[in-house]
Amino acid sequence: MKNVILLIMDGLGDRPNEIFDNKTALQYSYKPNMDFLAEHGVTGLMSPVSYGIRSGSDTSHLSILGYNPENYYTGRGPFEALGLGIDLKPGDIAFRANYASVINNTVVDRRAGRIKDTNNLSKELETEIDGVKFIIKSGVEHRAALVLRGDNLSDKISDTDPHNIDSKLLNAMPLDNEAKFTANVINKFLERSRKILNEHKMNKDLILNGKLPANEILLRGAGKVPELPDFNKKYNLRAACISGTPLIRGIAKLAGFDIINVNGMTGRIDTDYNNIINTAVESLNEYNFILINIKGTDIGGHDKKPEIKKYAIEETDKALKQLKSILNDTLIVITGDHSTPCSYGDHTGDPVPVLFSTNGIINDDVKRFDELSVSHGYYKIKSSDIMPLILSYSDRSEKYGA
Amino acid sequence: MKNVILLIMDGLGDRPNEIFDNKTALQYSYKPNMDFLAEHGVTGLMSPVSYGIRSGSDTSHLSILGYNPENYYTGRGPFEALGLGIDLKPGDIAFRANYASVINNTVVDRRAGRIKDTNNLSKELETEIDGVKFIIKSGVEHRAALVLRGDNLSDKISDTDPHNIDSKLLNAMPLDNEAKFTANVINKFLERSRKILNEHKMNKDLILNGKLPANEILLRGAGKVPELPDFNKKYNLRAACISGTPLIRGIAKLAGFDIINVNGMTGRIDTDYNNIINTAVESLNEYNFILINIKGTDIGGHDKKPEIKKYAIEETDKALKQLKSILNDTLIVITGDHSTPCSYGDHTGDPVPVLFSTNGIINDDVKRFDELSVSHGYYKIKSSDIMPLILSYSDRSEKYGA
Repeated sequence: MKNVILLIMDGLGDRPNEIFDNKTALQYSYKPNMDFLAEHGVTGLMSPVSYGIRSGSDTSHLSILGYNPENYYTGRGPFEALGLGIDLKPGDIAFRANYASVINNTVVDRRAGRIKDTNNLSKELETEIDGVKFIIKSGVEHRAALVLRGDNLSDKISDTDPHNIDSKLLNAMPLDNEAKFTANVINKFLERSRKILNEHKMNKDLILNGKLPANEILLRGAGKVPELPDFNKKYNLRAACISGTPLIRGIAKLAGFDIINVNGMTGRIDTDYNNIINTAVESLNEYNFILINIKGTDIGGHDKKPEIKKYAIEETDKALKQLKSILNDTLIVITGDHSTPCSYGDHTGDPVPVLFSTNGIINDDVKRFDELSVSHGYYKIKSSDIMPLILSYSDRSEKYGA
Repeated sequence: MKNVILLIMDGLGDRPNEIFDNKTALQYSYKPNMDFLAEHGVTGLMSPVSYGIRSGSDTSHLSILGYNPENYYTGRGPFEALGLGIDLKPGDIAFRANYASVINNTVVDRRAGRIKDTNNLSKELETEIDGVKFIIKSGVEHRAALVLRGDNLSDKISDTDPHNIDSKLLNAMPLDNEAKFTANVINKFLERSRKILNEHKMNKDLILNGKLPANEILLRGAGKVPELPDFNKKYNLRAACISGTPLIRGIAKLAGFDIINVNGMTGRIDTDYNNIINTAVESLNEYNFILINIKGTDIGGHDKKPEIKKYAIEETDKALKQLKSILNDTLIVITGDHSTPCSYGDHTGDPVPVLFSTNGIINDDVKRFDELSVSHGYYKIKSSDIMPLILSYSDRSEKYGA
């Protein structure tokens, strides 16, 4: 049985770009080590979730790891909260939250003037009411996530965000009988929060400066944190995750992965690529499955900066050199979680290249790791096919039948 | 977001033919515009419904448009009735019908001597009994369709067609309790029809000429017309259909498409190909999704006439020239609904070529639009994958997750 390194380059798939002579980032980049691994393995195109689906990183990572998002993706709330690094537990109820400006019970700005930093506000709002713990964490600008932890909680709760300005504030309403307690405790929390926010020095200062206060927190997208069957038990592995991205770490943790920290890992384009791969290789002493997520490729796509995407690919490639020597007892899998073409600036439903490389398996005729080259390779698969192929190529599959 | 033209060339897929130097119709035809679109897009093979399924035009069009035929294909009756151009409504009960010859309560010819035209008979049989409207329409030779419209109707009704000659006439029997009313009213209709047919001048003339009369109408294949969720709401589109084929127009109408008529469109090989495509392009002012079905390719296949299939391909191709100039804001999709190889003369389960062409997306290495060339392309998909890919390549997909 072989060890496994699954490297997910976030948003890897690309479309032709004029800046790259109408090539994709992978086609245009210098990446001899990825090409070596493609040549010494099998390749193909992988559609995240399914053909044409514009997957998020959340749904696609769930699917790649073998958790059908139809069953385990419980909405934006929990996954936004994971993305902000809140340490969620199965059964927690999570909301996406906006700091907003309210005058006379009317929402006048859903983003509180795109306020810069609400960490000081969020700190004050954390509390416990009727045995329910309220955890709140600020994100970028007006964004935040609210988590409820306690017994008998339900996610069948309406949005308090009216989604339009000049609308009256809404109470949290229970969408079924079991949700009454949850709605009630949320409304108590919101009432308490309003008082704190209106009296908060930061808001008083904003008003003194003629700006709108962040005096309300609007909730939407309630969801229950799913209970993911333990990845280690499901596949009989000892799994760890290396990622600078809170969302990915959060999903991995829910699935029972250990989280490995790496010096210099930032989750940004300036991350320490070499140390990430080096740490992954060293961790194979303790673990036999390492999930790595590298975010820079996605950042380049979202920012429409092909050079950034190319940089992330080439820096990752340099770091991959050290993997060539461990192919006897390690299966290397490289793919993306979705496409984020630099020409488009957001996720698309395009399939993503995938390679499986280890000594001893068949090598298809593909010698380069890019969208077009691997389209002539062995596989046209969906993300849910990745784990069975990993188990197979790492000699870990149980026989099905005799 | 881009407009969409989905061109379905009926029965497009083919097998090698000696007349074509062992090439398929697509391989042998001169079709520079389809090849241009293939070169400027992504291609693949599409299996209608699933691998190896010999789909009909009904089941495959349902599947392509996103209606799983397992849920929405309710049997031959409704779709035969749609094919004859009856304006069906959800809940109608439809049967396939044969005019037959009966002597002494015994079916002596299930096709009434393959009688030429039964329109005059069908006209007389339309009626209303116990609040149920009976609509009947003749097809080719002895064929017809019967539709029941009213309340409390069921399709759990046995065939009155004994399926063999020298068999006694059968009554319609209810297959469950709820079907009793329907069976009863059908038997009243059949009794009434017998009298009318036996006394009809056309039948008396047939007997005078020593021929068998068409004095019975045999029913089989009862099915309820399905309620298709509205295509426009399902995909947030404004959709119209251009087809000279009643079955396709009928399915599109059930799905909520507007139907566009075209001067010179016949549904035959002599249709006005140029006007069809021209009308589609003009209709993009009002609609953002145009479904076109061109029937000539299927006719060539069924008639085992490769030259006919080639003609339909080449005439369509000429008309497609005008699409080259709208690729900035239009996604062109070309495929077939199934294969009808000229060497076989009927539908086969072979996959069908498909192309997605628009500016800005990746182009795979495929430069020709035929079965073999596109087998090296990006996709090996099923018909149910077409709509998600259309939504994705026309920038209309919702993101699944974040």
